[in-house]
Amino acid sequence: MHVTMIKKELADGSPCRKCIQAEDVLKRRGLWEQIDEVVYAKEADPSSHGMKLAAEHRVELAPFFIVKEGEREVVYTSVIELMRERLASPMSAPPPPVVVNGAHGAATNGHALNGAPATNGTNATNGAATAAVTDDEVVALNQRFAKAEPMAVIDWMLERYGEAAAIAFSGAEDVALIDMAAKTGRPFSVFTLDTGRLHPETYRFLDKVRAHYGIRIVTQFPAHAPVESLVRQKGLFSFYQDGHGECCGIRKVEPLHRALGEYRAWLSGQRRDQSPTRTQVERFELDRAHRGAAGGAMLKANPLAHTTLTDVWNYLRDERVPTNELHDRGYISIGCEPCTRAARPGEHERASRWWWEESTQRECGLHTGK
Amino acid sequence: MHVTMIKKELADGSPCRKCIQAEDVLKRRGLWEQIDEVVYAKEADPSSHGMKLAAEHRVELAPFFIVKEGEREVVYTSVIELMRERLASPMSAPPPPVVVNGAHGAATNGHALNGAPATNGTNATNGAATAAVTDDEVVALNQRFAKAEPMAVIDWMLERYGEAAAIAFSGAEDVALIDMAAKTGRPFSVFTLDTGRLHPETYRFLDKVRAHYGIRIVTQFPAHAPVESLVRQKGLFSFYQDGHGECCGIRKVEPLHRALGEYRAWLSGQRRDQSPTRTQVERFELDRAHRGAAGGAMLKANPLAHTTLTDVWNYLRDERVPTNELHDRGYISIGCEPCTRAARPGEHERASRWWWEESTQRECGLHTGK
Amino acid sequence: MHVTMIKKELADGSPCRKCIQAEDVLKRRGLWEQIDEVVYAKEADPSSHGMKLAAEHRVELAPFFIVKEGEREVVYTSVIELMRERLASPMSAPPPPVVVNGAHGAATNGHALNGAPATNGTNATNGAATAAVTDDEVVALNQRFAKAEPMAVIDWMLERYGEAAAIAFSGAEDVALIDMAAKTGRPFSVFTLDTGRLHPETYRFLDKVRAHYGIRIVTQFPAHAPVESLVRQKGLFSFYQDGHGECCGIRKVEPLHRALGEYRAWLSGQRRDQSPTRTQVERFELDRAHRGAAGGAMLKANPLAHTTLTDVWNYLRDERVPTNELHDRGYISIGCEPCTRAARPGEHERASRWWWEESTQRECGLHTGK
Amino acid sequence: MHVTMIKKELADGSPCRKCIQAEDVLKRRGLWEQIDEVVYAKEADPSSHGMKLAAEHRVELAPFFIVKEGEREVVYTSVIELMRERLASPMSAPPPPVVVNGAHGAATNGHALNGAPATNGTNATNGAATAAVTDDEVVALNQRFAKAEPMAVIDWMLERYGEAAAIAFSGAEDVALIDMAAKTGRPFSVFTLDTGRLHPETYRFLDKVRAHYGIRIVTQFPAHAPVESLVRQKGLFSFYQDGHGECCGIRKVEPLHRALGEYRAWLSGQRRDQSPTRTQVERFELDRAHRGAAGGAMLKANPLAHTTLTDVWNYLRDERVPTNELHDRGYISIGCEPCTRAARPGEHERASRWWWEESTQRECGLHTGK
Repeated sequence: MHVTMIKKELADGSPCRKCIQAEDVLKRRGLWEQIDEVVYAKEADPSSHGMKLAAEHRVELAPFFIVKEGEREVVYTSVIELMRERLASPMSAPPPPVVVNGAHGAATNGHALNGAPATNGTNATNGAATAAVTDDEVVALNQRFAKAEPMAVIDWMLERYGEAAAIAFSGAEDVALIDMAAKTGRPFSVFTLDTGRLHPETYRFLDKVRAHYGIRIVTQFPAHAPVESLVRQKGLFSFYQDGHGECCGIRKVEPLHRALGEYRAWLSGQRRDQSPTRTQVERFELDRAHRGAAGGAMLKANPLAHTTLTDVWNYLRDERVPTNELHDRGYISIGCEPCTRAARPGEHERASRWWWEESTQRECGLHTGK
Repeated sequence: MHVTMIKKELADGSPCRKCIQAEDVLKRRGLWEQIDEVVYAKEADPSSHGMKLAAEHRVELAPFFIVKEGEREVVYTSVIELMRERLASPMSAPPPPVVVNGAHGAATNGHALNGAPATNGTNATNGAATAAVTDDEVVALNQRFAKAEPMAVIDWMLERYGEAAAIAFSGAEDVALIDMAAKTGRPFSVFTLDTGRLHPETYRFLDKVRAHYGIRIVTQFPAHAPVESLVRQKGLFSFYQDGHGECCGIRKVEPLHRALGEYRAWLSGQRRDQSPTRTQVERFELDRAHRGAAGGAMLKANPLAHTTLTDVWNYLRDERVPTNELHDRGYISIGCEPCTRAARPGEHERASRWWWEESTQRECGLHTGK
Repeated sequence: MHVTMIKKELADGSPCRKCIQAEDVLKRRGLWEQIDEVVYAKEADPSSHGMKLAAEHRVELAPFFIVKEGEREVVYTSVIELMRERLASPMSAPPPPVVVNGAHGAATNGHALNGAPATNGTNATNGAATAAVTDDEVVALNQRFAKAEPMAVIDWMLERYGEAAAIAFSGAEDVALIDMAAKTGRPFSVFTLDTGRLHPETYRFLDKVRAHYGIRIVTQFPAHAPVESLVRQKGLFSFYQDGHGECCGIRKVEPLHRALGEYRAWLSGQRRDQSPTRTQVERFELDRAHRGAAGGAMLKANPLAHTTLTDVWNYLRDERVPTNELHDRGYISIGCEPCTRAARPGEHERASRWWWEESTQRECGLHTGK
Repeated sequence: MHVTMIKKELADGSPCRKCIQAEDVLKRRGLWEQIDEVVYAKEADPSSHGMKLAAEHRVELAPFFIVKEGEREVVYTSVIELMRERLASPMSAPPPPVVVNGAHGAATNGHALNGAPATNGTNATNGAATAAVTDDEVVALNQRFAKAEPMAVIDWMLERYGEAAAIAFSGAEDVALIDMAAKTGRPFSVFTLDTGRLHPETYRFLDKVRAHYGIRIVTQFPAHAPVESLVRQKGLFSFYQDGHGECCGIRKVEPLHRALGEYRAWLSGQRRDQSPTRTQVERFELDRAHRGAAGGAMLKANPLAHTTLTDVWNYLRDERVPTNELHDRGYISIGCEPCTRAARPGEHERASRWWWEESTQRECGLHTGK
């Protein structure tokens, strides 16, 4: 097998940003040596080798990869797919050993945070993870990462906790977290809450993400007895009458509690710009509402806290991340099917969730306006 | 309150069939006395009182009802809605005692079947229900009802078992069973299997049926552990690869088992014309696969066994029964969302269920054709 | 017939704004005398007459109207529907004469603008309309209406031109113009361009608007020869290859030209915030690209020029204006079916039109990036 | 370029029917010499050359073709695509000369029909086409083709009329006619009536067919004046009130008249089983309602007249013909968007067209039942 990477050089001589990123991902994951040849496509020179290859293979995006095996050639435009399908160390396998006091930023974190070396010098992850997190540490983390990109937050979390850190995946634009985690080259966990009332499109998307990244997505399902009891008493749409709290409690809150019991830390896609109730969300929080596998408060990271909806979508488009097809049909925020609708023109992102509840307060009615 | 029933007399002087049926339903349920006045709309005479009322109220269907209370008039074109909303004895309450050798029971039925009086003259229902059903009885029932309409089968089942008989409602055209049961005026039970993967339209339909008939629909939900385990190992769409058996086992078969444990007898919408595997379905069967509340084999009735798809749909349209909106979008048979599709032109009803499985056998492929 | 208007008094004693507006609309149209009785619903006093009527009729919105005829009562919550269905002077008929120095015209407007009486005192409308509009007048109009609400611009246009002024209705949120025009009580014209490729939903919406306002909507259809010729040569989707210009030329531009030939002035729903190319749109423009019925440049008004998408949608919701159902499915801007899509998260309003064309410029491709 | 055809030999030693057909199509079109090599895939022998090629290229359908050019290999599973994209004589070019008194069946037709040699021995097509068709000839044709397959009827029509014969394509399952015509290897014409109200899916399908077969589809569009006039007077949905006749007249009938003026004969997809009004449809008819290019009555062929819906769909599936995506959503018959709906369970094929008209007669109403 022979792998050629075609990189682009822009007309002004500068390198293509996405080509640099792809190279970086390959290096992080120790796969760079498996690229046998690098060829340049010079925008200014259509006769350059890379431009000819692009024309021949009818590829319009850079970078791309040509994998040749015997007489057969296959073209990849996604570095993620190339890694998963062709390169030696699949994502699900353990990553190369983490160099604790060295490369890519997060190495000395445990140290920096508690002023002492991690108890287990040879495996900082375990050492850090078993120590309970304190409020002071969270404050220090938020200071330290005050200007950090989401990727840095994720990288630090995965370095410290490995698969004991779980991304809570909602099936919407927070797929960005999974894409970033995959690109760190570190092991990580993903879970999702299957409430039993998700959109068919969301189920298909969950499976698409699973296949695309070659990962396992743990799916948490509600206990049958409370679901049956609620439906028996109030039918399948009681939330339209008496609010979403009861149903969410059974189908989301309890299963989340159960899910988190398996991990030591978690990551969510919350952003400050999502709603008035989230304007204070920090990159790191101490989650006292759940008990993790270690039994106490859990560290929770919100790597996207300070980004905006537009930032996230620019990332998803730039990185060609697979997305929920509902986003092509006007949905922004996505939850359960009966409780989500496409965004109305001029509406805020969260207005399409439980819209009837907000509207009861917005409505200038005769009887509701006491 | 004053209730007027407008009945139609056809141009040839004959009575309107649906008017007779509506009157019959009201009488069965002991509600006929609450109709204060009957007025005739004579097709041949536009100046007849009923024709004038129809014109004034812009009603095009017979029969209809005008309920007057003070100065307000409300028109009902559905006898079911009239009964539920306005008449004294709601469907969910016990019906008036059936006078057949005892209370609320099918006393003479047992008699007819086994040539001896029912053991418990004072409560035939309980008496009949507690006695285990035998193969001979099932044979006798099928002979006795060999020419019977579905309604007669349902009526007999509900007379004998009451609420201990449950209609297994799939959320499709078997809503006909519920409509017929409602029209017997007897108490009955309904359950459905919510697999967690039904169409959003089916959830809405289940709730519509619940509201329309004013009934309770018990919803059986899968246990969370096996669902989570299957999804963890094989993802959300494993059935496309290795067949629907495993998923159906977890999401349908086990919950059905659980559901039936609450009842003594059940009714399903199976028909002989549905599929090659159902051509021998009888009106009555002894279900040895499940243990009912009484602990042994259960009597199972298939009131629609000898009817056809067309019969059922003629009934649904004639009786203005609410239907699943998926039927308006080309669906005939309806199951779980990922395992059901609209019928293709010229395809048989069941070809739209688990279509990929049949197709693996139909496909004239190079590798599959061993 | 007896008509009661129920107005609301808020808890703080202030009047309900929408009630005032409804009264204003009725007065403008000379229909106020047909309201026989006004009753107040005092938010602070559930026993007030209006609150009781609201409870009795299960109405939650103010104002509302009860029309009693004989023993029958009908409730209206839309003043537009009340006027169209029950009050004497339907919208399509000529409005009562406007008393401003003459019949049915905006006599003093011309005066105010050019410092001299309109040439034709007895028919200011015709007089004003026949005089060609000059650049100076347009400048003066924009100054005069510099702070004006859209309604004022519309009112002035209709006062001056009457049915010789046409609203160019795209089938989207510019329905606001029609609602406002209807509320002026003046006659007006509406046309739309049926390109032959609109969404089925848009055709339904056009008809809904027609019925709701009781108006005629003139529909302009493309000439068959150029459509056939284009399709014969390039198929039905040539715009995806070589841009929307050619198809728009045949299906929109030419029919618009034809349409405008019937009028003397027109109104469009353009807004400055719609796109970078519209940031300079003024309330009034001199349209030299089209020849109106009078043969020269036409006055064009853009009453919404200085409003925002949010303003327009607040208006549509507040006034309960019927809207295109595509807006409930994520569409913001709406054009032809193959050339419009639902808005993607974080995208600007116009990004969902001819998206492939913009993308060819946005795409950082190997071949497109010359 | 080197083209390999892989044919299948079934386990019982018999040849694959579709492989024979594909070879026949290639021979008819004079393209058989361009197949450089034929390799057999023996079902009974996984180590046969063809079975290995199938495994290597992951192809599951027979026959298939491997086109090798330099180092690049492309696999085709559709003979139509192979011919269009790779073989020398594209479908749009003139076919090889028709051997009048010889091969493939239809040669002596003119002769057989009128007992005399065609006037123009060297070009039977022109000769036959200029002679007006008589009733006797139509009778003789129906007798002669009384047992014929649709393909034979099409072949004869195209041999006789060439591009002067047009297939009237509705955008539904009559695409079978186009597929058959393409497989004759003869030139032919196709037109369709774009009423301006087709489903978006149908427009996409028309274009898909155009691209798949590499053909031109002439699209006939309604004249703008009558469309505008109808809509101005009655709105866009007048057919729901006063029947589809007026709208069809403007959008279908007149354009069909115009379209047929370009041809000498035409073919339609009518079948006897489509509706009660078509039970007498013959394979050949004399169409006196239209004037063709020659000025008189036209020969009209209905090659599918004696086939059934099931026959046609079996053909479409067997031959992997592209179909309108609406058929995947429950549509059987397809016309204009507002006048077509998905088939309801148990309904006949044509019941989904102009359903409201039939229903007014079916409905057992008070007022409609005069």
